[in-house]
Amino acid sequence: MPNSLTIAEHPAITDLWLIGIGTGSPQHLTLEGQQALREAAVILIPHKGAGKDDLAELRLQIIRASGSTAQIIPFDYPQRDPTLPYQTRVTLWHDEIAARWQAALAQAERAGPVALLVWGDPSLYDSTLRIAERLTPRPKLRVVPGITAIQALTAAHTLPLNTVNGPVQVTTGRRLREHGWPEDAETLVVMLDGDCSFQTLAPEGLDIWWGAFLGMDEQILHHGPLATSTAPIIAARQEARARHGWIMDIYLLRRSDPISA
Amino acid sequence: MPNSLTIAEHPAITDLWLIGIGTGSPQHLTLEGQQALREAAVILIPHKGAGKDDLAELRLQIIRASGSTAQIIPFDYPQRDPTLPYQTRVTLWHDEIAARWQAALAQAERAGPVALLVWGDPSLYDSTLRIAERLTPRPKLRVVPGITAIQALTAAHTLPLNTVNGPVQVTTGRRLREHGWPEDAETLVVMLDGDCSFQTLAPEGLDIWWGAFLGMDEQILHHGPLATSTAPIIAARQEARARHGWIMDIYLLRRSDPISA
Repeated sequence: MPNSLTIAEHPAITDLWLIGIGTGSPQHLTLEGQQALREAAVILIPHKGAGKDDLAELRLQIIRASGSTAQIIPFDYPQRDPTLPYQTRVTLWHDEIAARWQAALAQAERAGPVALLVWGDPSLYDSTLRIAERLTPRPKLRVVPGITAIQALTAAHTLPLNTVNGPVQVTTGRRLREHGWPEDAETLVVMLDGDCSFQTLAPEGLDIWWGAFLGMDEQILHHGPLATSTAPIIAARQEARARHGWIMDIYLLRRSDPISA
Repeated sequence: MPNSLTIAEHPAITDLWLIGIGTGSPQHLTLEGQQALREAAVILIPHKGAGKDDLAELRLQIIRASGSTAQIIPFDYPQRDPTLPYQTRVTLWHDEIAARWQAALAQAERAGPVALLVWGDPSLYDSTLRIAERLTPRPKLRVVPGITAIQALTAAHTLPLNTVNGPVQVTTGRRLREHGWPEDAETLVVMLDGDCSFQTLAPEGLDIWWGAFLGMDEQILHHGPLATSTAPIIAARQEARARHGWIMDIYLLRRSDPISA
């Protein structure tokens, strides 16, 4: 596991741009994102390993379509050590990714802004901002906002995210399993859920809007009462995951009798 | 106040596209939004009245830059009746806006998709989807997702929206005033707050990230402990509002000692 000395051996990243690219449709890119890709000198592209090659290809497709002439430098994601406690595992993993960015930049042929393409938006359940904080010296950061999976989900269902003046909670599959339905929640969006954690809830009085591969040709949607939706969504998810080798999905749960006014 | 008979007298809207345009930067438009503006036959543009002319001008600027040749038809927003209870007032106001869309379309010179440009994203604290549900016959709806004020805020502050695996709540200024800090909240985003409702909270242990005119040349940011930020933000907001004639702002509050793990 490298330490900060390893990081300092390589050229510094002075300007780091984190560009949100949306959830899978090349058309989610904003004009600002397009312009940033054109102005970047170097773009770092991850190889996330087997089964996610179409994600790497999508990034290259977005870069090509933007007219960017940046130098593209790939880097490999490290493995997480499953024997470590969660927080330690994540911290060391982030340290290692920062070191790999810096190492990859040793191949840079020109100076200028370094860009990373971030799935969705760089602010939402994404590690890139936290990894960037580990770089020494600290680069000048720029975040280009992108379409989140939440917006892609509600757009696909033509669904308002909130009820009139109502609150919205966003949480993770892990939190939903461990803490259950938040007491005062009316609308709950669940992300990072590989386990269909909605099946752990008492389904009465809840509706679900689910989507996978949002914005992509493979997009799948389902909505209905949670009680009758659990089995069809689990089946659709398993089938699609087996077919593609991976899946990204998200869902929104709402009380059938909203509490807000 | 027109009723549904008034609505039915005018030509039907068969395809209605709600296009999220982001929060004020023409560069927030997505490639999908740009393409939709080009393919629309008609675009309805609101005149929201005095002091918001720069918003109408921004919409026209975005349409022109997209290369759209759509017919642009303006419509006036009705006034809300302040003597009515909140829900009734909103319901009647939405009915009236739907009728005005339909009436404006009597001027349409060609058939095809009708587009509306929606500030931010059509799913988030916006009435357009609910107004569209009032049209008879019901049009085929399409939502083009857009950059929300939440993404624009976190991007401007280069701030992650959530802590690691942490939950996020989104609420309104009105709810914050009436209900206070939600008991289990860690990160709270407050929208639709014309009253700086953060000043009603006990500030200890809370940090604030505030932004106004996000994405625009006039963008103003402030962050710090809530205790020392309340007065500067209120002053900056008053000054900017007086200067521009209007203001749009949003903020994120986070517990200084996050509870999630």
